[in-house]
Amino acid sequence: MTETGFDLHPRLAADTRFVGDLPVCRVLLMNDRRFPWVVLVPRRAGLRELHDLAPAVRQSVLAEVLDLSAAMQAEFRAEKTNVAALGNQVPQLHIHLIMRYSDDAAWPGPVWGVGTAQPYGPADAEAAVRRISGLLPAG
Amino acid sequence: MTETGFDLHPRLAADTRFVGDLPVCRVLLMNDRRFPWVVLVPRRAGLRELHDLAPAVRQSVLAEVLDLSAAMQAEFRAEKTNVAALGNQVPQLHIHLIMRYSDDAAWPGPVWGVGTAQPYGPADAEAAVRRISGLLPAG
Repeated sequence: MTETGFDLHPRLAADTRFVGDLPVCRVLLMNDRRFPWVVLVPRRAGLRELHDLAPAVRQSVLAEVLDLSAAMQAEFRAEKTNVAALGNQVPQLHIHLIMRYSDDAAWPGPVWGVGTAQPYGPADAEAAVRRISGLLPAG
Repeated sequence: MTETGFDLHPRLAADTRFVGDLPVCRVLLMNDRRFPWVVLVPRRAGLRELHDLAPAVRQSVLAEVLDLSAAMQAEFRAEKTNVAALGNQVPQLHIHLIMRYSDDAAWPGPVWGVGTAQPYGPADAEAAVRRISGLLPAG
């Protein structure tokens, strides 16, 4: 499988900022400063479900998600990580990775649909992107 | 790693029925007939995060989750699967696998915290357990 035909869904493009590309997944910062929150999108066309991933790619995606999960939990001193592939609203396969705290805006519930996203300011967004991109292995 | 010291969290035990044991994960039926919904619990002590899984076990867990995801989506003719490890309320690592439909009680939002669980009756619970356990590879 290759990246042929891969295009980021416009809703994901609108809600996020580019952080970096791992071997399989694109890493995007969700534009909601309430939570350190990234989305990983496998750069393959036509994927909807996690089980649609070809066996050869599954392990890479898992490693990319879990390595970043561990790195972000340490960097952001999160009490809990939430990892989820839902896709009810945006059909393109994407995996949420969200750092959670017992005093955050949605605790102990999930974050989706709770309250209103608080967009980053330009400088804060840039700082968050740099902080997370610094956790990615050098390409 | 072995199962030494593994005990199912009492909240998970209270909310579910036993379906079967895969090589690593215990499969449990969530007692909410609104959604075909299982929880997979790796039978290892002390796990909280997906990235806590030892590398040798990660791939088994991934395979168990995704094989059952594909099998349940086909069996229940689901429009979408939701796969998530949250754990804000129950700290023991567990992975939700939920079959979703555009006319279900929470669509297009996530299922957690929406409305009130509708418990299965005894016969329906038994039928659901049999239907899902029939999807598990013979042990």
